[in-house]
Amino acid sequence: MNSSSQRVRIDLGARSYDIVIGRDLIGHAETWKGLPRDDAVIVTNTTVGPLLLERMLAGIAAVHRQARVIELPDGEAHKDWSSLDRIFDALLEWGCDRKTTLYALGGGVVGDITGFAAACYMRGVPYVQVPTTLLAQVDSSVGGKTAINHPLGKNMIGAFNQPLRVVADLDALASLPEREMIAGLAEVIKYGPIADPEFLNWIEGNLDALKARDLGALAHAVRRSCEIKASVVAQDEREAGLREILNFGHTFGHAIETGLGYGTWLHGEAVGCGMVMAADLSARLRLIDQATAVRIARVVARAGLPTRAPALGVERYLELMRLDKKARAGAMRHVVIESLGRAAVRTVEDDLVAQVLGAHTG
Amino acid sequence: MNSSSQRVRIDLGARSYDIVIGRDLIGHAETWKGLPRDDAVIVTNTTVGPLLLERMLAGIAAVHRQARVIELPDGEAHKDWSSLDRIFDALLEWGCDRKTTLYALGGGVVGDITGFAAACYMRGVPYVQVPTTLLAQVDSSVGGKTAINHPLGKNMIGAFNQPLRVVADLDALASLPEREMIAGLAEVIKYGPIADPEFLNWIEGNLDALKARDLGALAHAVRRSCEIKASVVAQDEREAGLREILNFGHTFGHAIETGLGYGTWLHGEAVGCGMVMAADLSARLRLIDQATAVRIARVVARAGLPTRAPALGVERYLELMRLDKKARAGAMRHVVIESLGRAAVRTVEDDLVAQVLGAHTG
Repeated sequence: MNSSSQRVRIDLGARSYDIVIGRDLIGHAETWKGLPRDDAVIVTNTTVGPLLLERMLAGIAAVHRQARVIELPDGEAHKDWSSLDRIFDALLEWGCDRKTTLYALGGGVVGDITGFAAACYMRGVPYVQVPTTLLAQVDSSVGGKTAINHPLGKNMIGAFNQPLRVVADLDALASLPEREMIAGLAEVIKYGPIADPEFLNWIEGNLDALKARDLGALAHAVRRSCEIKASVVAQDEREAGLREILNFGHTFGHAIETGLGYGTWLHGEAVGCGMVMAADLSARLRLIDQATAVRIARVVARAGLPTRAPALGVERYLELMRLDKKARAGAMRHVVIESLGRAAVRTVEDDLVAQVLGAHTG
Repeated sequence: MNSSSQRVRIDLGARSYDIVIGRDLIGHAETWKGLPRDDAVIVTNTTVGPLLLERMLAGIAAVHRQARVIELPDGEAHKDWSSLDRIFDALLEWGCDRKTTLYALGGGVVGDITGFAAACYMRGVPYVQVPTTLLAQVDSSVGGKTAINHPLGKNMIGAFNQPLRVVADLDALASLPEREMIAGLAEVIKYGPIADPEFLNWIEGNLDALKARDLGALAHAVRRSCEIKASVVAQDEREAGLREILNFGHTFGHAIETGLGYGTWLHGEAVGCGMVMAADLSARLRLIDQATAVRIARVVARAGLPTRAPALGVERYLELMRLDKKARAGAMRHVVIESLGRAAVRTVEDDLVAQVLGAHTG
């Protein structure tokens, strides 16, 4: 393990854990020290497995006498009951008991499914997140939100289930396809407007380095993103309030993902475009000025993310958004920017949302 | 509401709640006071619904502006993903949000599925248990264990998820089929050997009154069972140790249920027979004398429960038991009686279990 690895602590009492960020982590026994020594099951997908599984198995061999592997098909379209059931089938066929530790080796889809499987298998087994995409390292692997999709909505079936540890190996990003890399930048950018104007400045100044996968820039982006997320999650683990701000851009984004069919746009692409719309909504509510909304749209565009949403029709968008979990019965709640670095949840009239949709779709 | 209703408290810190036991509870607004006022969804089955739904809807009308109903097919064979998914489909089609309260109106199957659905829907919504069978009133509705079955094992996919309240209306037992009534007695009897010799004396003296559904006898049986269960659960909510004693007879019982196919024997029937075998095992381990094992077998038989297990073959039984969640890798753990009123978990050699199986099957 590279001695320059860093740790970000998520402070949740008995459920506290570390996010370990650094180079060359997966293949080293030291990374896995302190985890339960019973059997391990690694859940990965057919893309990540061939690239990283061998290193991972070598790394955890010192901790676990036995490690088995489940390889799922790749992509958001497979974040469903069928993949979950494949995990349950395998665990039961192998006779895995409550002491088995699951490892999620992959992106957000693998992490979400594995974390949810760990929540439900025999009413709960421990698990570890090993995010291999930028999006998973800066967002989805951190904070214990796990879920599968339902045909009627994203992440509708799930659990709050904290991992024992998150291991974010920056070297895993080297093999990430360009499109996935760019999608991950959406969740990095998000932390600027909702929590940290200085970080937004830094992102604007280092976007080219990030896109070129400069390891120093990536290390900073992952660490700062995790710090912000850790602070929010520690204050509101179960999303009773504050945590909702992490969904900036997600109400629009989820509607795009569900409306097009899961996997057509990547989650990060939908969130990038969703942030442009949510920033515009914030400006129309006169919370931020137009220049700030344009600034957010510009950094999204510079990252290479889409800024125009598909033409699903305004009515369909409104229907999809009402289904989204943030839409309380009868009222449409949106995460908006009150000022750069501060987000809030507001109930917004359909008319105004329709104006935003009209301006950014098609 | 009858003024003679009683409350048993389950003490779990922020997750504490009451079990309300009495006559004529379901139809009265007072029973439901203090529960969240947002929308309600009642999950029931095609047997219980026609008998109790109207009364229940009248009772909760004062609390909830809107109450919808999901009717599942009846029986253990339907405690599966397909029933769970029907609940999710309905909730999403109705646009139910995180503030929706689910009510489980039915026996153990409805309670287990609904409690698990509440754990997963949008990562958690509140729910209330309204057990209508003796088995559910004395055992399954209390303590927050929820699950569905997997073809390879009982209750393998689930969650610890405490309800907001348990409402045990003794009048619901009047319409219970005889076979279900007897099955419920198995879980009542269980509390004697594992926790309370005096309660076992009482059961032996009042078994005829219980079978005749004498309301005074039922009230005492339900209250004392809930008190014992509440005390155990408060000490070990997530079954790290002590709580396992509540599974006395269940390792043998689950093997019968899974081996025959869910629903062939009722859960209580399998547990009754399983307790006879577990008592014999305890005697063979020289923890209790033969007379005590015979005494337990006799009360099970007098209740009208089966005391001989189906002939699945010793090897098949051992295989099924190893799959059961209590069988840690490589070792077979059984709940045994150390002395009347005190249970413990012991690792037992296959040979001895095989002797018990040989003596009680076929």
